[in-house]
Amino acid sequence: MRLSRYFLPVLKENPSEAQIVSHRLMLRAGMIKQQSAGIYAWLPLGFKVLRKLENIVHEEQVRAGHIPMLMPTLQSADLWRESGRYDGYGEEMLRMQDRHGRDMLYSPTAEEMFTDVFRAHVNSYKDLPLTLYQIQWKFRDEIRPRFGVMRGREFYMKDGYNFDLSKEDALHAYNRHLVSYLRTYERMGLQAIPMRADSGPIGGDYTHEFLVLAETGESEVFYDSEITDLTFGDRAIDYDSVEQCQAVLEEFTSRYARTDETHDEALFNEVPEERRRTARGIEVGQIFYFGTQYTDAMNAAVQGPDGKPVQIHMGSHGIGVSRLLGAIIEASHDENGIIWPEGVTPFHVGIVNLKQGDEEADAACEALYDSFTAAGLEPLYDDRKERAGGKFATMDLIGLPWRITVGPRGLKNGVVELTSRRTGESEELPPEQAVEKIIQIYAKHRVTGL
Amino acid sequence: MRLSRYFLPVLKENPSEAQIVSHRLMLRAGMIKQQSAGIYAWLPLGFKVLRKLENIVHEEQVRAGHIPMLMPTLQSADLWRESGRYDGYGEEMLRMQDRHGRDMLYSPTAEEMFTDVFRAHVNSYKDLPLTLYQIQWKFRDEIRPRFGVMRGREFYMKDGYNFDLSKEDALHAYNRHLVSYLRTYERMGLQAIPMRADSGPIGGDYTHEFLVLAETGESEVFYDSEITDLTFGDRAIDYDSVEQCQAVLEEFTSRYARTDETHDEALFNEVPEERRRTARGIEVGQIFYFGTQYTDAMNAAVQGPDGKPVQIHMGSHGIGVSRLLGAIIEASHDENGIIWPEGVTPFHVGIVNLKQGDEEADAACEALYDSFTAAGLEPLYDDRKERAGGKFATMDLIGLPWRITVGPRGLKNGVVELTSRRTGESEELPPEQAVEKIIQIYAKHRVTGL
Repeated sequence: MRLSRYFLPVLKENPSEAQIVSHRLMLRAGMIKQQSAGIYAWLPLGFKVLRKLENIVHEEQVRAGHIPMLMPTLQSADLWRESGRYDGYGEEMLRMQDRHGRDMLYSPTAEEMFTDVFRAHVNSYKDLPLTLYQIQWKFRDEIRPRFGVMRGREFYMKDGYNFDLSKEDALHAYNRHLVSYLRTYERMGLQAIPMRADSGPIGGDYTHEFLVLAETGESEVFYDSEITDLTFGDRAIDYDSVEQCQAVLEEFTSRYARTDETHDEALFNEVPEERRRTARGIEVGQIFYFGTQYTDAMNAAVQGPDGKPVQIHMGSHGIGVSRLLGAIIEASHDENGIIWPEGVTPFHVGIVNLKQGDEEADAACEALYDSFTAAGLEPLYDDRKERAGGKFATMDLIGLPWRITVGPRGLKNGVVELTSRRTGESEELPPEQAVEKIIQIYAKHRVTGL
Repeated sequence: MRLSRYFLPVLKENPSEAQIVSHRLMLRAGMIKQQSAGIYAWLPLGFKVLRKLENIVHEEQVRAGHIPMLMPTLQSADLWRESGRYDGYGEEMLRMQDRHGRDMLYSPTAEEMFTDVFRAHVNSYKDLPLTLYQIQWKFRDEIRPRFGVMRGREFYMKDGYNFDLSKEDALHAYNRHLVSYLRTYERMGLQAIPMRADSGPIGGDYTHEFLVLAETGESEVFYDSEITDLTFGDRAIDYDSVEQCQAVLEEFTSRYARTDETHDEALFNEVPEERRRTARGIEVGQIFYFGTQYTDAMNAAVQGPDGKPVQIHMGSHGIGVSRLLGAIIEASHDENGIIWPEGVTPFHVGIVNLKQGDEEADAACEALYDSFTAAGLEPLYDDRKERAGGKFATMDLIGLPWRITVGPRGLKNGVVELTSRRTGESEELPPEQAVEKIIQIYAKHRVTGL
């Protein structure tokens, strides 16, 4: 993309309404614009990251054997009356009536609707196990929306639902989700720690929240410092293997890690003192096993091998996709702006032309642009007639991990400058080598999506 | 995808509620499930096609230089009061109040919101021209939703908005959209004819609707038969070239083609009688130029070169993405089911194992599966222990363009059977040749998306 043709309305001033850094930086970098309280327009740069996160979530869910589909945003109230949640859900549920006076609602979650699809179409034990999921807009009418996309009212969420013949099978689905979530967050450059949590209005006994450590987190968290040494890494995993998924769950959840909702001081004190940590965390996902609560209420059973009905064990599993943008920025920024992890950056590399209009500099930038594009990477080329300082400030603010600076002086020596956003370190090298280096860096960060 | 692990709830019986063939086939092929009147769940196969159409639209919009972003589904009523459309829009607008009693609505279109983003962030003539677009869920509370996704209430739509400094520039944007739409529909295997249309509640003088000819179309259309000989084809186009875009517009709109809303019997009679055609058509898109109507009402001007304010000329442009699934099926099916064009098929090829459990047949199917996957294609492998007749019927119903049938008898002679869904013609050839042929067929139908 050439910046002269893009729509990137960066702000020089800090917007007064933003209380936390991610909100401030998303506004300043021209990623979002508030349309109503807690409701945002996703400007091109913000949409680009949102789409990339969505694609990563899709890839990892499909890899785990889960099947994507899509529910409507609006639901009939009747389904929620059937499950017994309609009256109890409270004011966070946005309710409305259509022109015929039928009660409807904007989906805050979709246990009922997935259970409804399941009971309509699945009749036999042979069709299980089954995990369906969607990534779709949800609405929760928060009384005090704030912190930008971190606590918005309209938000983008992945929600998945497993249907199994037994508690044992459903717990394998639970573990499989835990593994796939670990992979998902790591690809996004995040360390998200699974913590024992409270199940809230979804219900159930088994639940873990995934928390990213950040000063602005809404939850106080307590954990054993050994946990932050764990990484999932490149390990191969067979998602069908009960043992392998169980082993990952044990590895990542056997040490103390809880939110304030489930914190147990006595247990925490069993952790050696030097490893006890208290911090704040941002919730970016949650997994649940809740058994037969919805399938019983909504009469969703299947025929077993002996022809008798079998109860269906369920769980649900969520990733806050839009909220993740805020979480990533909270975890990765400096005083000059965002620092995108390579896995989620909206553009792979910035090209800054120090002397727009100079024949050689222009040609070198165009050549770089074409090389990256041919390699399937997306460069952002600042081809505006601006001073270098302004161009650098914009690149730092929007946080592309790598910048190539092209100027007549360097070109005379046959070099361009390659700069890391994270370390600030620069090196001079011939353009072809800079391209080669960038291509190699991104080789393990390819996102294809659905 | 292995069918044994997929969720493809095909129906054997024709559902009684479906009046038209696309609705019937989408229900029977397990693509959608109605959740409320005019509101559908997109089951995995339906979602897969929807996503592919979305990706094609994105690719062609980006190719034309248009910039993707995303608006929320819910809007504040205030913006619509400002443009003067809130009271007039009528009962098709779904209105609601949030917990604080603020008037909100589910976006039926987004002229106001895009104009609002524009006026907030664009101040100078230097930032124009600019075309922003989104693909997002919309809601229109149709009094009598019917025909499945063809006339649903919640629907997925691409809507784009151009902002230009003069009528002349805005008409270039209009033409550019016309060209990009022609490309888009052709990639989807559709012939969509641009027809002079009525502008309706959007307003404006210039508008064309794109119509796909089909018996079940909601509009009566009148056209010169020479139009159906036109194809856009592979021609290269420079979207910045006013002349090139104008030439395409003239080529595709100079012959008589109108819907009943704008039909002019006297003009029509000037077409030689043997070329006059009356038919029915499905509207799959519309483009508008409406000048300064919204930008004036909402006070969205920019500074010109002389420092004085310049009025902004706008247009808006829509493609009904979810409705396109219905239109494609209406235009491409037979008595056995859907026939997907190669550009939009949910899976590229079906693999039918005639003798599941036979060691050689299983191994041959797995080898085919791996070859396609390695080539970046998606096969659907029917690995169920079903009779061949049932497997063929399912493949015909869901309409994959190509099927490979693998059985012990053929394998003894070193061949598999490759069958075209459209022609029904089969040929026997060695598995590697079948793979090579399929790869070549899809070489020009790659969809990468955003």
